[in-house]
Amino acid sequence: MSDAASRVVETLRPLLGDRLATSEAVRAHHSRDMSRLPARMPDAVVFPRTEEEVQAIVQACAREGVPIVAFGAGSSMEGHTIPIRGGISVDTREMNAIVEVRPEDFLAVVQPGVTRKQLNEHLRDTGMMFSVDPGADASLGGMASTRGSGTTAVRYGTMRENVMALRVVLADGTVVHTGSRAKKSSTGYDLTHLFVGAEGTLGIITELTMRLHPIPETVSSAVCAFETVKDAVEAVIATVQYGIPVARVEFMDEVAVAATNNYSKLDLKVAPTLFFEFHGTPAWVAEQSEIAEAVTREYGGQDFRWSTDPEERARLWQARHDSYFATKAIKPGYDLYTGDICVPISRLAESILASREDIDASPLTGQIIGHVGDGNFHTAYLIDPDDPEHLAEADRLAERAIERALAVGGTASGEHGVGTEKIKHMRKEHGDAVDVMKRIKAALDPDGLMNPGKMGHAG
Amino acid sequence: MSDAASRVVETLRPLLGDRLATSEAVRAHHSRDMSRLPARMPDAVVFPRTEEEVQAIVQACAREGVPIVAFGAGSSMEGHTIPIRGGISVDTREMNAIVEVRPEDFLAVVQPGVTRKQLNEHLRDTGMMFSVDPGADASLGGMASTRGSGTTAVRYGTMRENVMALRVVLADGTVVHTGSRAKKSSTGYDLTHLFVGAEGTLGIITELTMRLHPIPETVSSAVCAFETVKDAVEAVIATVQYGIPVARVEFMDEVAVAATNNYSKLDLKVAPTLFFEFHGTPAWVAEQSEIAEAVTREYGGQDFRWSTDPEERARLWQARHDSYFATKAIKPGYDLYTGDICVPISRLAESILASREDIDASPLTGQIIGHVGDGNFHTAYLIDPDDPEHLAEADRLAERAIERALAVGGTASGEHGVGTEKIKHMRKEHGDAVDVMKRIKAALDPDGLMNPGKMGHAG
Repeated sequence: MSDAASRVVETLRPLLGDRLATSEAVRAHHSRDMSRLPARMPDAVVFPRTEEEVQAIVQACAREGVPIVAFGAGSSMEGHTIPIRGGISVDTREMNAIVEVRPEDFLAVVQPGVTRKQLNEHLRDTGMMFSVDPGADASLGGMASTRGSGTTAVRYGTMRENVMALRVVLADGTVVHTGSRAKKSSTGYDLTHLFVGAEGTLGIITELTMRLHPIPETVSSAVCAFETVKDAVEAVIATVQYGIPVARVEFMDEVAVAATNNYSKLDLKVAPTLFFEFHGTPAWVAEQSEIAEAVTREYGGQDFRWSTDPEERARLWQARHDSYFATKAIKPGYDLYTGDICVPISRLAESILASREDIDASPLTGQIIGHVGDGNFHTAYLIDPDDPEHLAEADRLAERAIERALAVGGTASGEHGVGTEKIKHMRKEHGDAVDVMKRIKAALDPDGLMNPGKMGHAG
Repeated sequence: MSDAASRVVETLRPLLGDRLATSEAVRAHHSRDMSRLPARMPDAVVFPRTEEEVQAIVQACAREGVPIVAFGAGSSMEGHTIPIRGGISVDTREMNAIVEVRPEDFLAVVQPGVTRKQLNEHLRDTGMMFSVDPGADASLGGMASTRGSGTTAVRYGTMRENVMALRVVLADGTVVHTGSRAKKSSTGYDLTHLFVGAEGTLGIITELTMRLHPIPETVSSAVCAFETVKDAVEAVIATVQYGIPVARVEFMDEVAVAATNNYSKLDLKVAPTLFFEFHGTPAWVAEQSEIAEAVTREYGGQDFRWSTDPEERARLWQARHDSYFATKAIKPGYDLYTGDICVPISRLAESILASREDIDASPLTGQIIGHVGDGNFHTAYLIDPDDPEHLAEADRLAERAIERALAVGGTASGEHGVGTEKIKHMRKEHGDAVDVMKRIKAALDPDGLMNPGKMGHAG
């Protein structure tokens, strides 16, 4: 541990007691995320319970010039929480209070360590739900920081649309609040959206006001298989362009379906498959489902299996969410190298097909799944961690997918974020706007202590 | 004209020819907006046609330290476009090209001088519409800069949700692009949302990628009168809390209805009134309208008049939009002093009632109208411009309304923006976050030339 970090630990120990850890095991847990990216140990891990404690931690680090990296549930896919320059990992798990729920205003106020499942569990009797569902039971602070989304964003939006207000501890220890409880506002620079997606590089979120949505009266879902990837994706494009307001529409290719059958003990037909979900009144769901089925049949959609049975739906969505693990299980010991591009909906078929062809022409095993209603899909390549050629080949495939996405006005990451791995694509995507980001970073964190080496700092 | 401004004019004259004006009449037109706020002449007005010309203008001003104020349709309500420190007014009216329309991706790319009606006229055959409707035929650059919204925001969102990407000329003449054509992205600080609502204080928008929405198959609207203001507003709250997805729900109090009857030759019952609109499939609109009517009847909603006749609807909405002029016509020669608070929906009744009581207890004539589905309403006080006591009284009433809004987690402006008049409320609403705004302003516009004296500069 550096002398500076030691002094921070000494300063904070009386405040935090055993909520300050320097043990190998705890530091190791905070040295990595869900991804295959190389681990790096923090010097210490702290578990604050209050905003005041976060403020004291940030002040201590600022005084000593020690890096500060916020850590939520550790479910990041891009190395966001890996303290690549050491320093203090601020784990928000004990900041897990649901501060206030106001169903009458469609909002809930939470601490950043509250997870999405915890919030929905808590909301159960209010008739309200928190909509954003990235699969993992991520913390809301983490989801906000990566501008996360997932399966329901096509209907309810991403964290961008669902964070109303924040409290944030800045790099100098100042606490600010952003946004309000009003549904809209025209006063001041939109700082809420600046901190959402900033990946902890501009401050640490200590409280979030989340937008809630009424639990739909009826939920209906369907699974539908197609002859080809092209048919499936074109069916999605037609559905979206027709203006059918699906609540979810997910794509899995054959590789993903086979892996999921295996891992989650399902008997889905092994074919390019779409999962649909509709939310609304019974009459409306029936109407929209019928239209969607008619549209997809034009693209050869087969064996449409509609279900309003909550258990069957839960099993299917759990399987979809477990797809990451299902794919990993194809080759035990291998790593999963994931991509996350997002393109305008009209370019989705060509983008997915090109990525599929790239995989087919490569020695790697890979699959494609996607939140296709938003034009977002994930490539996943299985790579042998001991074979540098595998990593190089995955890099090459990912690079090609990103270049294609940027060429049609898309983005290098739809929902996973930048972290350490996408920094190299930032200037390709954002051009000179990267310098604007750097100026903002320098203005708010002049010493570069908030999650250093990530956004606003490198690139 | 200052020497510095003269040098800017000399530099730009060869480039712009007669698209650079220093005449009294043109400068006078750019010295004010729609509001009652005191005029201030710019030194010159320029009418660029291209981004390169805007860049040259900004560079010339930067070199000489001359203020730059962007001007769209001049329909601002808060003095945004008034060049309170002189300088160059950059009128974007000749940047009125619709660059590209991609209905298949629900987007259109436009220059900033394109107005919302112009865009919708252009879209007519595509089946798509641009949804944001602030009443005035504002320019899209101006609407983005003030984070404008209006009657349809309750369903389709404000400019915050409908600007996907921007091109912006920064204070030093650099051109950057923000956002993408993808529906979502997790890469980089959200600069699109930083420029949306920045009121021209961080740069000049030269191109916007706007989100489009399918034109609804059926549109149905209704007018409904209530016994009391409280009944009307509580009916709205119940409608919203029930989760009925209205496309519009507008409130007018008796004073506003009477003024509108007079001005727009209508025969609405003079009573607190709600205007509803539903968009969707015929079956769905029928279902939702029925539910809404049932809910509002519980609050004494009378004489529900549903109509799907486009002409009748157009006349009603035009009347609603003309309410500003209708109210002004009550007392010719008087000014209208407008408020624009927005509160959480559950606090809307108490907020409107308190504002109505304030007016009733005051010597001023005033009315309340509102985009009540969003918790947003406008107070308007008629003031004699020659009577300083009128202005003082209006200030007092507005201040009270804002204090009440902030006390319940609302905002000092739902959609009109900060401009010159709301600066004094910024710290009350945003606290130390105002300093973050100032740091961002200083980072992007260190010489303070972009719309000086407004946001990020004062406060």
